[in-house]
Amino acid sequence: MSVVTIERKVLQKNDELAQQNRELFARNGVFVINLVSSPGSGKTSLLERTLEHLKGKARVAVIEGDVQTDLDAQRVAKLGVPVVQIVTNGSCHLEAKLVQDALSNIRLDGVDLLVIENVGNLVCPAGYDLGEAMKVVIASTTEGDDKPLKYPAMFRNASVLIINKIDLLPYVNCSIEGLKKNALQINPKLTVFETSCTTNAGIPEWSKWLLEKTK
Amino acid sequence: MSVVTIERKVLQKNDELAQQNRELFARNGVFVINLVSSPGSGKTSLLERTLEHLKGKARVAVIEGDVQTDLDAQRVAKLGVPVVQIVTNGSCHLEAKLVQDALSNIRLDGVDLLVIENVGNLVCPAGYDLGEAMKVVIASTTEGDDKPLKYPAMFRNASVLIINKIDLLPYVNCSIEGLKKNALQINPKLTVFETSCTTNAGIPEWSKWLLEKTK
Repeated sequence: MSVVTIERKVLQKNDELAQQNRELFARNGVFVINLVSSPGSGKTSLLERTLEHLKGKARVAVIEGDVQTDLDAQRVAKLGVPVVQIVTNGSCHLEAKLVQDALSNIRLDGVDLLVIENVGNLVCPAGYDLGEAMKVVIASTTEGDDKPLKYPAMFRNASVLIINKIDLLPYVNCSIEGLKKNALQINPKLTVFETSCTTNAGIPEWSKWLLEKTK
Repeated sequence: MSVVTIERKVLQKNDELAQQNRELFARNGVFVINLVSSPGSGKTSLLERTLEHLKGKARVAVIEGDVQTDLDAQRVAKLGVPVVQIVTNGSCHLEAKLVQDALSNIRLDGVDLLVIENVGNLVCPAGYDLGEAMKVVIASTTEGDDKPLKYPAMFRNASVLIINKIDLLPYVNCSIEGLKKNALQINPKLTVFETSCTTNAGIPEWSKWLLEKTK
């Protein structure tokens, strides 16, 4: 019982800090998305393709969240974008406080779009507001079409669903229609994109949509 | 600071219950594995193929862990194996207490092998002993070869690594040698299998190994 109470306090404190982040983003006119998915769904690859597409059209900064290593930040830095790595050191999700600390390394008045790539985890990050405008959940075709039903909180709390790795559809047991149906059953308001970071399919459409939201 | 203390108490209590489970398994001569992976790596598919292979050779029971739904238990039940579903209702991992509760529905004296399929999550289940003989971690080729470095606790705490979906290797950006090297760097004692639930590659070898451990 005491654990539940303490958890509630932790979440309440997180929500307060997230609200501070949100006000800071608003003051600086920064649009912020929180990228969430299972490990290996292609968050970093999608981010790379998106950054290539937005080059010269929007000023983007990135916060990378990982349990261990700065491998993803190294990948993103190669694209010439300011990036800050948060290593959670075992923790399974980002929290608003960690983002707040990372923000001291970013000049927000020179940023239009901030992308926060969360720890790869389809459960825990769902409950933690970071101050973002929206959560974007990525589901890979290789994971099958039942994941929205099995991990509903993440799909319920997201505004956008990106179905990634559609180039692998001929080789995997996944129905795009089934996946969409399951996701929209959990959250009818989801905006859905279908992408492949290998063929670039869907990347222009998603990037264009994101750019419009940013402006 | 108080949160840390409470978390430590929760883990300590979990370890005590896990030890009780372990003694119960030993008394009944049951070999127990804890299957862990990201969502969509193929835990349930691998279990289905393994059950088909072990049919008539070992008496198997299954505990399914899921955040929501009993979809996996329904799949396993079709193979004529006793199965108990634990729905964690939002929680990101199984705990020893939940397994203990589930065990009241299984006649352990009629079981040689108990497979516990954990919640799909490459972070949180790493820290929770359920009383199993070993953790078996599944990594899919579609997730790329860097996951052992990014989620080291799970690979450190596992005894077996199953590299699944090797039929997709021609289509994905993943080096089997790189994946093995990264995993063995984290944990040199890992026994490694390479499998495909589509072509059945590696399933006989893995099932034979598991059967020998069971006896």
